[in-house]
Amino acid sequence: MQKITILIHCEDQKSIIASVTNYIASIDGNIIYLDQHVDADENVFFMRLECELRTDQWNLESIKAHFKMNLATKFNMAWEMYTLDQKPKMALFVSKYDHCLYDILGRYSAGELPLEIPVIISNHEDLESVAARFSIPFHYVPFTKDIKEIGEKAQLQLLEHYQIDFIVLARYMQIITPNLIATYKNNIINIHHSFLPAFPGAKPYHSAFKRGVKIIGATSHYVTEGLDEGPIIEQDIARVSHSHSIEDFIMKGRDLERMVLARAIKLHAERKTMVYNNKTVVFS
Amino acid sequence: MQKITILIHCEDQKSIIASVTNYIASIDGNIIYLDQHVDADENVFFMRLECELRTDQWNLESIKAHFKMNLATKFNMAWEMYTLDQKPKMALFVSKYDHCLYDILGRYSAGELPLEIPVIISNHEDLESVAARFSIPFHYVPFTKDIKEIGEKAQLQLLEHYQIDFIVLARYMQIITPNLIATYKNNIINIHHSFLPAFPGAKPYHSAFKRGVKIIGATSHYVTEGLDEGPIIEQDIARVSHSHSIEDFIMKGRDLERMVLARAIKLHAERKTMVYNNKTVVFS
Amino acid sequence: MQKITILIHCEDQKSIIASVTNYIASIDGNIIYLDQHVDADENVFFMRLECELRTDQWNLESIKAHFKMNLATKFNMAWEMYTLDQKPKMALFVSKYDHCLYDILGRYSAGELPLEIPVIISNHEDLESVAARFSIPFHYVPFTKDIKEIGEKAQLQLLEHYQIDFIVLARYMQIITPNLIATYKNNIINIHHSFLPAFPGAKPYHSAFKRGVKIIGATSHYVTEGLDEGPIIEQDIARVSHSHSIEDFIMKGRDLERMVLARAIKLHAERKTMVYNNKTVVFS
Amino acid sequence: MQKITILIHCEDQKSIIASVTNYIASIDGNIIYLDQHVDADENVFFMRLECELRTDQWNLESIKAHFKMNLATKFNMAWEMYTLDQKPKMALFVSKYDHCLYDILGRYSAGELPLEIPVIISNHEDLESVAARFSIPFHYVPFTKDIKEIGEKAQLQLLEHYQIDFIVLARYMQIITPNLIATYKNNIINIHHSFLPAFPGAKPYHSAFKRGVKIIGATSHYVTEGLDEGPIIEQDIARVSHSHSIEDFIMKGRDLERMVLARAIKLHAERKTMVYNNKTVVFS
Repeated sequence: MQKITILIHCEDQKSIIASVTNYIASIDGNIIYLDQHVDADENVFFMRLECELRTDQWNLESIKAHFKMNLATKFNMAWEMYTLDQKPKMALFVSKYDHCLYDILGRYSAGELPLEIPVIISNHEDLESVAARFSIPFHYVPFTKDIKEIGEKAQLQLLEHYQIDFIVLARYMQIITPNLIATYKNNIINIHHSFLPAFPGAKPYHSAFKRGVKIIGATSHYVTEGLDEGPIIEQDIARVSHSHSIEDFIMKGRDLERMVLARAIKLHAERKTMVYNNKTVVFS
Repeated sequence: MQKITILIHCEDQKSIIASVTNYIASIDGNIIYLDQHVDADENVFFMRLECELRTDQWNLESIKAHFKMNLATKFNMAWEMYTLDQKPKMALFVSKYDHCLYDILGRYSAGELPLEIPVIISNHEDLESVAARFSIPFHYVPFTKDIKEIGEKAQLQLLEHYQIDFIVLARYMQIITPNLIATYKNNIINIHHSFLPAFPGAKPYHSAFKRGVKIIGATSHYVTEGLDEGPIIEQDIARVSHSHSIEDFIMKGRDLERMVLARAIKLHAERKTMVYNNKTVVFS
Repeated sequence: MQKITILIHCEDQKSIIASVTNYIASIDGNIIYLDQHVDADENVFFMRLECELRTDQWNLESIKAHFKMNLATKFNMAWEMYTLDQKPKMALFVSKYDHCLYDILGRYSAGELPLEIPVIISNHEDLESVAARFSIPFHYVPFTKDIKEIGEKAQLQLLEHYQIDFIVLARYMQIITPNLIATYKNNIINIHHSFLPAFPGAKPYHSAFKRGVKIIGATSHYVTEGLDEGPIIEQDIARVSHSHSIEDFIMKGRDLERMVLARAIKLHAERKTMVYNNKTVVFS
Repeated sequence: MQKITILIHCEDQKSIIASVTNYIASIDGNIIYLDQHVDADENVFFMRLECELRTDQWNLESIKAHFKMNLATKFNMAWEMYTLDQKPKMALFVSKYDHCLYDILGRYSAGELPLEIPVIISNHEDLESVAARFSIPFHYVPFTKDIKEIGEKAQLQLLEHYQIDFIVLARYMQIITPNLIATYKNNIINIHHSFLPAFPGAKPYHSAFKRGVKIIGATSHYVTEGLDEGPIIEQDIARVSHSHSIEDFIMKGRDLERMVLARAIKLHAERKTMVYNNKTVVFS
């Protein structure tokens, strides 16, 4: 018995839920999870569905073809379909900060993340020893403004070589090129160390301290060309007070960054996120 | 165009979602909200559905009869159906504490609660002036162990007179009789001032203080015969520290009690809660 | 036996804590609360102290004079001293939104706020009936750009007449004049319905919805001439998701506004806040 | 210039704060942090103080002797004094769960914890490879009811050999012997996977699921002879709903366990906790 996950979005239309659920019944499928959302302003329908197929007659390719022909085309759907055994391949981009890297690799080693990490790419050599501890290939790819074409090319070659599905910037401190963003559209996740849209850009903890906020935050989002302006996946916050220094903000922030990035990675890897209109639908 | 809300639970069965959504399509209904849940252990299916009926051919009675005949009976469903203009009637039971009462009446007056409050019933006369401020009928019904038959009878008469749909115990400090619980099964909401199941019964803040907890809580639940053991609707918490006295716990707790009770009332009045197996399904 | 609260800030200096605590010992005082903070960047010392005076020889005026002569002048302190029975007088400014008003008046009536509310001032007549329910004088003071001198004058006269110590803008929708801000420096509290500094200005829930945030917030702050830029007293947040509409944001936000404003009022009335460098020190 | 941390508790007495702060001034110390608490019910005074000594005339031993003679004895204080360069030595006890272990070792390697981890002790061999990744000595010490004397002896020998200051049970699944508890009184930290005192003992997530709670929690506490009854250091919670299975509770709980244990370890290692009357004072 096979389990598949289907993500759909399309124009909202009459009887669309009935049509999808009828289709699943028609292939002898048992729905074990269904969530849907209608963006009333934009008139867009979103659905996430998990079902078990009671027969073994299908493989992923044949069920995809059948779904397309018998349902997707009719409703002009944008859609994706996955089997549970397809673990996405994630590349980690890092620079010098190691706390998110340790957290992700710890969770990965503890079996909490439904994904594979074939490669870590960095613009510095500092964290090679961390990668070695977890026996994950580490590639040093220098990247500065002056050599961004060379850097981008090396990145893309590695990503292709390791058949990477999505990229996580675990406190990677360099710009991602427009070409790379386009190649991995809605598949690059960044962690920003503020409660966006407050304090985008550099040194957000310093700005938060200066403003005298009583709560700090972290935000994970898909990377778009606008700096820190991509669709938000997850956010969380922590209380601070006058008694906390900037160093305290940074230390408390590390915990937020870890948690918020780990949750975003998990949601993405479990195919629970959809992007539309620079916002996310997160079926969690 | 009419809006209806349907709540369903029944044994989980093949094609049940398709059957319901087909039914809605068959009566020319447009689903604007659908959420469902399967309790895999108990094999029970739950659904909440809101839809707009495009025609005016139905009134509530006729659509109910049609739904029963064409869908509910076939799947042996327990079900309820409401139109949006049916505001439930809520009775407030109070004793001497006024903070939850002020909060509920303030929200009610500010138009935040989709319900009517035809009556406040109390075993003390203290809060009559609060009821008067908000122009709500107040009935003093003495209640002690010795006169519980008389008290219960008076309560039931008032509830019948005001055609009450559900009861909220806003820090009401007396036992509810089994007969009243049975009459209003899953329709009496209590607020308990602890994070249940920790600290049931009397003086939970004192017990929490003694145990040295770092977080206190409040719990709203449906009333059953077991004291503080009914299905939990909503909970929330607040941080405390060694620097807080019992009085501080009580003061912080008042805010929790207000919020948690207000949320439970709203969820219930919006028909977003279902009870099964001493637990709630809350479609929020 | 008398209880006094002392707030101090001054340049950080050697032995300052010892000097203050020695002083309290010298007047036979028993310290029951002491909290202090040093802003290392600015080299400023802050202290809040509560003590019981074991003798009845002092009244507030004489102890103030003694404190000034024997301690405050030597360290060049900015300081305030209060007795517990001095309840500050608070004016409420409102427009048309009633949820914060109901909440504050409910808490006030329930005895939770250590202050007096002698007057409610509004630029609309809508909420007069709410004031009447709680038997609080209500004054309608029209205020628009065109008549701001007249409006300001009427406001100042009322504030003087009622001997107001501080002002709370409970969703008051008009600009406060620079003159009024100067007169009540660090004594006007506003509630802004966003997680500042994100979304200052008008319609923050709409902006938050458009940005696709996963958390919304509210911020209470002292009013300064820069719009929504004053020292932050308290903030809180609530989770939202793609399934929430702007109306849901607004409804959830009302709870945040109520809570965050009520906490700020309480902190201010209990003399637990100090302002320095556009930030607050909150000894809670 | 040397930084020292002093922890004091004693009977509450007149002028005690003045006496301590005068003492610090007398040795030419500059107080950079002071927090104090009075347990009014028990009449106990607690203080935590950090100061910089402007001269180099003291070493830890001489300042301790001087403090004892000139202050501590007079007030009959229980007290501790530390220099910042004294990192406490922590032993990790583990069984088969690896998520807390990865988290602690990740934080340790990232330089977030002011302590040393000379040894990991386990009653199973499973996690030896994790210890190896982080190059920390791992000792397999079998422990069951039948061989508890042998096990305890081996544990104590290792703890002595590695000069261990405190022990952290990172989901260690065996009883700690009374002898070990006595030897490391208030120096053994456990993480329990529920919001104590709700659901002590085995399988708390299963019990929480059965009860239908809307919030789950985790609790770190010092180990005493009563199972899960020791002084609570830190707690935190996460929201759950009807849609979460027991497996979801467990997965969400892992994050709570990690965070709550990491915070407790940090507080303890920074000497910010004091124990009295089965409760903690946490100066954070």
